[in-house]
Amino acid sequence: VSVRDAAGTWVVDRPTEAIARQMIWGERLMICRLTIAPFTVTPVHAHVHEQMTVVERGRARFTVDGSERVVGPGDVLHFPSGCEHGATMLDEEVVLIDIFSPVREDFLGGRDRREREPITRGGGQS
Amino acid sequence: VSVRDAAGTWVVDRPTEAIARQMIWGERLMICRLTIAPFTVTPVHAHVHEQMTVVERGRARFTVDGSERVVGPGDVLHFPSGCEHGATMLDEEVVLIDIFSPVREDFLGGRDRREREPITRGGGQS
Repeated sequence: VSVRDAAGTWVVDRPTEAIARQMIWGERLMICRLTIAPFTVTPVHAHVHEQMTVVERGRARFTVDGSERVVGPGDVLHFPSGCEHGATMLDEEVVLIDIFSPVREDFLGGRDRREREPITRGGGQS
Repeated sequence: VSVRDAAGTWVVDRPTEAIARQMIWGERLMICRLTIAPFTVTPVHAHVHEQMTVVERGRARFTVDGSERVVGPGDVLHFPSGCEHGATMLDEEVVLIDIFSPVREDFLGGRDRREREPITRGGGQS
């Protein structure tokens, strides 16, 4: 599945070598679809933005406020504002849909919605 | 895929005969995973809540502020606050992930987060 908005546009970037990120955002909501290489570690961090994460593909070990859990396709994680969380991808590519409110302006580098670019490459494999 | 939160719980209800709805919500975010029978019509409506919809499975014809588009797996729709939208499912079961901010209190009938029930049945087929 190659996720795109109904107009066929996302902003696509690569925050690290191991992570491809597609982003759609509005006034209060942001969706980021992340395609992450096996064994990638996302260090524990926290932010004021409330977050939910839907696992689309692959498995990962999450740390949430100090406790660990392994999640797979269809699982949903909820990170309240300020919740400490991080993850280690297991032995396959992982696709996560991260949902935020408010919008992660820190991901946008000053872009606004009008600056979305056409898709050049889907994040998925089918 | 049977979607569940990391604690294994959702609130599950059936707003109409043709729609099964799984819900997870927090302070600002709500996710509703809808499993909808083929050919079901969701009449055009609007709400102040901003909405994004991720199509997980199946195809549907959406009306968005008077224009029509057919969407399928991986497509994302964005409905700003007040946007008029409705949908007709095509000839197969459709699974949609509806994301709202703020929380759709009108879906909860006074429930709060502590009243989530264990999953009795996943919404998906695999």
